Amino acid sequence: MATTIPGYDYDAAAPSPVSAEELQQLRENVLFGPDDEVALKQAGDVLSDQVEDVLDVWYDFVGSHRHLLHPFTGADGEPHDDYLARVRTRFGQWIRDTCERPYDARWLAYQEEIALRHTPARKNRTDAVESTSYVPLRHVITLIYPITATIRPFLEKSGLPAETVEAMHEAWRKSVILQVALWSRPYAAQLW
Amino acid sequence: MATTIPGYDYDAAAPSPVSAEELQQLRENVLFGPDDEVALKQAGDVLSDQVEDVLDVWYDFVGSHRHLLHPFTGADGEPHDDYLARVRTRFGQWIRDTCERPYDARWLAYQEEIALRHTPARKNRTDAVESTSYVPLRHVITLIYPITATIRPFLEKSGLPAETVEAMHEAWRKSVILQVALWSRPYAAQLW
Ligand code: HEM
Ligand code: HEM
Repeated sequence: MATTIPGYDYDAAAPSPVSAEELQQLRENVLFGPDDEVALKQAGDVLSDQVEDVLDVWYDFVGSHRHLLHPFTGADGEPHDDYLARVRTRFGQWIRDTCERPYDARWLAYQEEIALRHTPARKNRTDAVESTSYVPLRHVITLIYPITATIRPFLEKSGLPAETVEAMHEAWRKSVILQVALWSRPYAAQLW
Repeated sequence: MATTIPGYDYDAAAPSPVSAEELQQLRENVLFGPDDEVALKQAGDVLSDQVEDVLDVWYDFVGSHRHLLHPFTGADGEPHDDYLARVRTRFGQWIRDTCERPYDARWLAYQEEIALRHTPARKNRTDAVESTSYVPLRHVITLIYPITATIRPFLEKSGLPAETVEAMHEAWRKSVILQVALWSRPYAAQLW
């Protein structure tokens, strides 16, 4: 499946400048441990056939806020539908990757690629579009809230016991916060 | 009480470069509404006589990780106890402010001051210490997790109904994420 998503270059991304030791520290900061890996795998099973529904919720949220839609607008100031659609398929794959991939050097490499794609270094290139030059960091950080809060009902649909839903949800929160911290690297440069 | 905390200059901070409109957008991103203001006020009542216990948990967490303690070390590389102690009293006040203050222009001004105090622009000055020149942004972002997860038991101690605890906790999460987004401004400069 991975190879059929335009612009999704998981295996081709250049090595991340973030070291394994730095990643380890961030894992400790968010208390990410083996139980969370198990819980994320479970979340992956639960979410795999709900990915489009999750994306509907998130795209509705983005679409209902001018300031969030802005980085998806074209040269004419209107939402760029192809751009939105292409990013959406990669976003769906990201949900799967977050749950299923080992957080190793390859994963770290693609995290850096995602980071760069939100900044002037790499935004718009993957989809050969004309749009704004970067996604403001403040919006990336604040989207932690909706991206973590709105996943809960989808986890609950599994019908799994409340403690399992809770464990999956906490693991998801930890992972999203960890990833946003990784994505802030090219924004903060030497202060990262 | 405010005036007795060394270095706590809530009413003196220069106006923030962040506009009211930008703040409003960030509030929307984290879904922060009037119900959250009510819930935070309630959280303030619940937390006000537990502040030292909350700080014990957070300081234990920081103290048990070399990389988190590092920005609190002195020129000799050892933890700077006075620095830790002085910041701790302001951190306690921050818990109160997060719950009790209106999120207005004055609050925004002190948010910018807190942000700058984590960066080379202002770190160490307030307490006249020699220490590292900045707090790495990646640690600030990832600390969202423990700062939001560990507050729950303290909210539960209130004995209030589960929905009220939940509402206070969600409001706390939203506010911490919002504030970290504000604090990222001097790190990201024009990409903020
Ligand atoms: C926690 C918050 C966020 C998450 C989890 C997230 C996730 C992602 C993912 C997975 C991709 C695709 C990466 C790839 O190419 O494989 C992406 C791309 C993109 N995101 Fe985000 N994002 C976040 C915040 C935002 C915000 C707030 C905006 C806009 C205001 C935004 C706008 C974009 C755009 C425009 C792209 C395409 C970049 C390009 O040209 O390649 N993102 N995001
Ligand atoms: C969500 C995460 C964080 C929160 C809520 C937070 C909160 C605060 C607050 C309220 C203050 C006092 C502001 C004032 O002077 O009134 C402060 C200062 C400080 N914080 Fe943080 N902080 C966070 C992350 C971190 C991290 C990860 C570190 C270290 C690794 C850190 C190190 C410091 C230091 C060294 C100061 C003193 C700065 C100075 O010299 O004035 N903070 N923080």
